[in-house]
Amino acid sequence: IIESQLSADAVELGPYAHYMQKEIYEQPGAIAATLEMVSNASAVKPELFGAQAGGVLPGIQQVLILACGTSYHAALVARYWLESIAALPTSVEIASEYRYRTSVSLPNTLVITISQSGETADTLAALEHAKSQGMVNALSICNVPESALIRASNLRFLTRAGPEIGVASTKAFTTQLAALFTFTMVMAKLRGKLSEDQEKTLLTQLRHLPSAMQNILALEPEIKALAASFAEKRHALFLGRGVHYPIAMEGALKLKEISYIHAEAYAAGELKHGPLALVDADMPVVAVAPKDTLIEKLKSNLQEVRARGGELYIFADRDTKIEEVDGVHVINLLDHAGHLSPILHTLPLQLLSYHVALVKGTDVDKPRNLAKSVTVE
Amino acid sequence: IIESQLSADAVELGPYAHYMQKEIYEQPGAIAATLEMVSNASAVKPELFGAQAGGVLPGIQQVLILACGTSYHAALVARYWLESIAALPTSVEIASEYRYRTSVSLPNTLVITISQSGETADTLAALEHAKSQGMVNALSICNVPESALIRASNLRFLTRAGPEIGVASTKAFTTQLAALFTFTMVMAKLRGKLSEDQEKTLLTQLRHLPSAMQNILALEPEIKALAASFAEKRHALFLGRGVHYPIAMEGALKLKEISYIHAEAYAAGELKHGPLALVDADMPVVAVAPKDTLIEKLKSNLQEVRARGGELYIFADRDTKIEEVDGVHVINLLDHAGHLSPILHTLPLQLLSYHVALVKGTDVDKPRNLAKSVTVE
Repeated sequence: IIESQLSADAVELGPYAHYMQKEIYEQPGAIAATLEMVSNASAVKPELFGAQAGGVLPGIQQVLILACGTSYHAALVARYWLESIAALPTSVEIASEYRYRTSVSLPNTLVITISQSGETADTLAALEHAKSQGMVNALSICNVPESALIRASNLRFLTRAGPEIGVASTKAFTTQLAALFTFTMVMAKLRGKLSEDQEKTLLTQLRHLPSAMQNILALEPEIKALAASFAEKRHALFLGRGVHYPIAMEGALKLKEISYIHAEAYAAGELKHGPLALVDADMPVVAVAPKDTLIEKLKSNLQEVRARGGELYIFADRDTKIEEVDGVHVINLLDHAGHLSPILHTLPLQLLSYHVALVKGTDVDKPRNLAKSVTVE
Repeated sequence: IIESQLSADAVELGPYAHYMQKEIYEQPGAIAATLEMVSNASAVKPELFGAQAGGVLPGIQQVLILACGTSYHAALVARYWLESIAALPTSVEIASEYRYRTSVSLPNTLVITISQSGETADTLAALEHAKSQGMVNALSICNVPESALIRASNLRFLTRAGPEIGVASTKAFTTQLAALFTFTMVMAKLRGKLSEDQEKTLLTQLRHLPSAMQNILALEPEIKALAASFAEKRHALFLGRGVHYPIAMEGALKLKEISYIHAEAYAAGELKHGPLALVDADMPVVAVAPKDTLIEKLKSNLQEVRARGGELYIFADRDTKIEEVDGVHVINLLDHAGHLSPILHTLPLQLLSYHVALVKGTDVDKPRNLAKSVTVE
């Protein structure tokens, strides 16, 4: 049993070198706290999302998610979940783009906003824009109670990550994913897409999530050992497919933010349409490799990279049985975790960024040019 | 009057150093040829998209566009056009992602596929996947008659770009945009969103497009002069907002493909959410700066970059009156071209990539690792 420890000492570093490291390690507890009302119950209920949710959610026919930065990546993961598990059409937009464009509003749409602080200026403005288009039902997923987004939304879910001090978001992201997965279950159930058995199975998996996260965090020494060679590079490509493509995007963003290495993510199938030209011995490629239906496709993408001299860093589910050979570093995680896999695959990429930044000697908790909450446009 | 010259000598280099340069210069003629049936008429008609279009298009309530690489960027531009001009809900997906994910099909959807060759394996498979979900109406926009995509679609539009030899797509892209703009006009008209006056105005603008393109191509010497300093860089960020964000993406892809510089595009509003950490004197920033409603926002994004030491290369509409100062290079294009602006803003970015690649001495027409048509998965 993992207990949440979100108390007055939440802002003290304790045994950690940086807030980012501390917050990476707080994730099992933060997820347990966030899911306390979910995974300890025998069934999910709309009311997890606010008193009005029972009235609103059954009428929802589609979802529009608005967010920025890391929260945008959480939204992209949710899109895969909502469409594949709840059969709910979902679109995702960068808030700063949505607020200024002429889009088409559809009836019975729920607008979801995601923001750690709940004060992100572009996300707030995007929500107001959506409302002005007649979309009045809004669910906000935030880490701060009584934030502006929470106040502007009739439905809400508070992640219980505790204060996040590091500018590069870690535990806010994974708790957002936990919230979004819970929302997916609720909608799937309302729409008759989730049997009682499936619900029980998913709840069991959610309960196991914190201990699975602990097991992955225990890989830190292995990941740290890779960081030295990685830190010499000036570029990196991050590859994923399907629901793990946004996880590759988030991994690349982390590396950018704190190590200033120019990392970019691609859906692996797009490699041949351009970015493969960049691949040579100076361009390491990081791959998110879950044992899902796309694994054989991904392996073939990775062979293309290897054939062109690119060094590979593969974060693989143990049951993929990808082998380490010259130029191919493999970090074996756990066996494939099904729908929850993207949450688990996030952790090693956070640790990689953290250790690469340590080698480079950057200011991990306060990377140059960035602010924690972007409360101006 | 610009005449199309797509004849037997289409595959000879003539006075050009590379096919890419030739194909960049063929764009005014290719656009004129592609739009011949459109801009010489007094009105747009559904039948431009095939004999069945008159029966199919009036019933269409939403659009799903599937494409890869450069064609995907054309699709993203079309999304802005279709939603803002025709009020038609539009989603866009990378074909290799769509074909393998469980999505939700909506009734009365038109599936549009875009591919220069019409043989792109992932796009073909994505179309088959969409059909298997019950979406039977498909419009294919290709440059090759009787290609597999054309045969698999009940509606079609052939761009008349002529053979494209350079691996990095140029004239295929801009003619795809011309086709997609025409489609937007047809749908806007069918949906009562385009008055006769507006239609006439847009047709006039389309007729002027080739000569406007000629004027922009005449800026080649100025752009060439920038290439030497740019070629020393190993990275670049490309910024755009709104309908010009996909143009920034396409500019970054061109630079990647032929110069092997790691260029990445961002919607400018996302800068503060991470990539700004990368910006220093070694990270030049290229900005697509049309004189539209977002120009003041973009200027403020650019000031943030400048304040952090990033060198700016701004491709600006003349009427933005952005001034060149130390560290800020400005290429003035024409006055703002309204809805057609993304087509015009594509050209200087093609020329920039071309000249940077020349300085670097790469194989412009056959960049390493890439094939012209990706006919395998």
